[in-house]
Amino acid sequence: MNILDIIAKKRDNENLTKEEIEYFVNGYTNNEITDYQAAAFIMAVFINGMTKEETTNLTLSMARSGEILDLSTLSQTIVDKHSTGGVGDKVSLILLPIVSSLGVLVAKMSGRGLGFTGGTIDKLESIPGYKTNISIEQFVENVKNIGISLISQTLNLAPADKKLYSLRDTISCVESIPLIASSIMSKKIASGAQKIVLDVTVGKGAFMNNIAQARELANTMIEIGKLANRQTICILTNMDEPLGYNVGNSLEVIEAVNFLKGDMPEDLKQVVLNIGSYMLKLAGKGDNLEENKKKMLENIKNGKAYEKFKQLIENQGGEISFIENVENIPKAKFIEPIYSLKSGYIHQINALEIGKIACSLGAGRIKKEDSIDYQAGIVLQKKVADFVEKGEILAYIHTNKIEKLENAKNNILNNIKIEKEKIEIPKTILEIIE
Amino acid sequence: MNILDIIAKKRDNENLTKEEIEYFVNGYTNNEITDYQAAAFIMAVFINGMTKEETTNLTLSMARSGEILDLSTLSQTIVDKHSTGGVGDKVSLILLPIVSSLGVLVAKMSGRGLGFTGGTIDKLESIPGYKTNISIEQFVENVKNIGISLISQTLNLAPADKKLYSLRDTISCVESIPLIASSIMSKKIASGAQKIVLDVTVGKGAFMNNIAQARELANTMIEIGKLANRQTICILTNMDEPLGYNVGNSLEVIEAVNFLKGDMPEDLKQVVLNIGSYMLKLAGKGDNLEENKKKMLENIKNGKAYEKFKQLIENQGGEISFIENVENIPKAKFIEPIYSLKSGYIHQINALEIGKIACSLGAGRIKKEDSIDYQAGIVLQKKVADFVEKGEILAYIHTNKIEKLENAKNNILNNIKIEKEKIEIPKTILEIIE
Repeated sequence: MNILDIIAKKRDNENLTKEEIEYFVNGYTNNEITDYQAAAFIMAVFINGMTKEETTNLTLSMARSGEILDLSTLSQTIVDKHSTGGVGDKVSLILLPIVSSLGVLVAKMSGRGLGFTGGTIDKLESIPGYKTNISIEQFVENVKNIGISLISQTLNLAPADKKLYSLRDTISCVESIPLIASSIMSKKIASGAQKIVLDVTVGKGAFMNNIAQARELANTMIEIGKLANRQTICILTNMDEPLGYNVGNSLEVIEAVNFLKGDMPEDLKQVVLNIGSYMLKLAGKGDNLEENKKKMLENIKNGKAYEKFKQLIENQGGEISFIENVENIPKAKFIEPIYSLKSGYIHQINALEIGKIACSLGAGRIKKEDSIDYQAGIVLQKKVADFVEKGEILAYIHTNKIEKLENAKNNILNNIKIEKEKIEIPKTILEIIE
Repeated sequence: MNILDIIAKKRDNENLTKEEIEYFVNGYTNNEITDYQAAAFIMAVFINGMTKEETTNLTLSMARSGEILDLSTLSQTIVDKHSTGGVGDKVSLILLPIVSSLGVLVAKMSGRGLGFTGGTIDKLESIPGYKTNISIEQFVENVKNIGISLISQTLNLAPADKKLYSLRDTISCVESIPLIASSIMSKKIASGAQKIVLDVTVGKGAFMNNIAQARELANTMIEIGKLANRQTICILTNMDEPLGYNVGNSLEVIEAVNFLKGDMPEDLKQVVLNIGSYMLKLAGKGDNLEENKKKMLENIKNGKAYEKFKQLIENQGGEISFIENVENIPKAKFIEPIYSLKSGYIHQINALEIGKIACSLGAGRIKKEDSIDYQAGIVLQKKVADFVEKGEILAYIHTNKIEKLENAKNNILNNIKIEKEKIEIPKTILEIIE
């Protein structure tokens, strides 16, 4: 077997065997296959595609290219959730304590944000003291003790995916269904997930801009799940406007705490309840999805979910006083209201642009090495379909960089479309594919 | 303009502008565009193709990426010839002195052999003393003085092509019509050619294995020639069996000298006369092709072509005694006859395999850095369609490596097919495209 024949096969739109894909993944991980050979191969995959079997073999080879988190000492099947990324997505912070409070073991490794999308780990690190890089032993111990732990990717998970992911970025090969699907699934499999609920975001602030693409991605991941013996369910959710109201790390922690205390924005509530009801089902905690949702709401009402959240934070060293009193969480120096220039119904709040503006205010990274300003971000006061009066506040900008204010203000105004006509509240849950 | 957009455009099968192609070629030459970005781009070109305009722009950008040989001080339009490569191809050695003896100025830069194909420069260097790397001033001076000079590529000609050519080799992107066509034409243009006659070889020992591919390549190069204002004519020639009888550097020089003295193998004669008649026409030395052929044959008969060859060799420092008495040319230590194992008609002498065997005997390079044994090679005694008796000699092996003999012998026998049925002499000139 040699890399030239493998590249030529994919170039000629032939199907690759399991062994050929493994040869490529291992060779690239060990630097025996060069970046330019991988680039040619990936471009051929981008243009000619991959069958479900090829995509599954790519996924499994990438999953096996590094360490694999072994969660077999835990007493339950581990159900993981993952989102394909969005703006204002604080679902994990809210959802995982809820399902944990209902007896589902949560052992989750999360990522950091890059570009306009945030990452759960950055949000957790905005809580002073919270340790995201504890040892794997401590991580498993925490799950055994209190039923939940959230950490960053301390293991060398799927290094082949890491290399390919950065390469794809530099050769215009990001938007490929088999490559996106195998990237996501390889990391999930390497991080020990046995069953997976995927939040496939769709819209302006998501990688998938339309429902057809998202459906294809979902079906591909479900097929990989089947072939790789990891039951997978995909929930397609709307990401045209930011999820909830707050965008930015500590701002999203505040919204999460408020949610767990019962203050639930409707779109965020839909996403949390739907993903959660499937997680409960996959974990064997109840087959009736509507019942599962009720149980979740009950544990919000009775405070058990909130208690579980506090227990998680405390157990990983976070300063609990910040959670118990979110007013104590330090705020950015400049908090500027943005007033609506006209009256009407809000037709669009462009999630992608809001994400980029938040990033420019300091809430995100342009490059991996960039540091983050946890306080920076945007707090919306309105959602799509809301009515706004001229002069009413549309949003607040939170930033420590005064020089960024003016530009951010104009950009936000440009990206909130207000029209005279009424508009229906957009659907949040677009489709569920099992 | 940026490389990511250019890659994405070709990935999506859109046409690139002249400026975009220039951006790529210049960026890659200056190392601003990485090998992996170039690899992804080239794979997209391989799969999605290029229009004639794109291919011409690629050609011209590559031609301009380095030095360009300025032949404007010469008194004639410079007509160049080029072969897409083959086995036993000593056409330049024979043809150029002939047309020079008929008043056509010959100022030619040639290449070295790689893999199974030989190179004119290696053949010339097998003549003791012949200097292939004289200065450009001396080169032009020689052409002015005696009407002919053949040297190696001393200038930094089309460095972008050089980089892309080696890259393509490592990413399975060699066999692409627009890439092959632009590579050939960029070097011709950079080396000062104003009109070009191309010998497009077809068959087992050529890059183009079938006539359809060869025709496509020829049409692409002719189109480039039109758009780039370099009149180009393509002669498709058979390269299923080696051209003539001798394969190997000094062995081919011997065959060339014998040809110029009147001993002309039929296939070699056809190629020489046809290319030559077009060179004479393009150089304004006669529009009647059949007349041109007659003039060439006349100058062989009257010794003028042979005298011109000797003048070329002497003028560039070669020891003329070797030419005047080819028996003096040193021979390999081992010259082994190969006897036919059966009687019958020869149906095939696989040029590719004969080329590879000659290479293994020392006549060629596997890698660029390898040195060459000028004496090594194969001398056929039969051509396709000839009758051979069992026990008659099919060929001689010339080598200094006794350990290679046995294997070479078996390989040659395996690659000469002998059958009972008679077979017609194969056509040498397959098609001429103007």
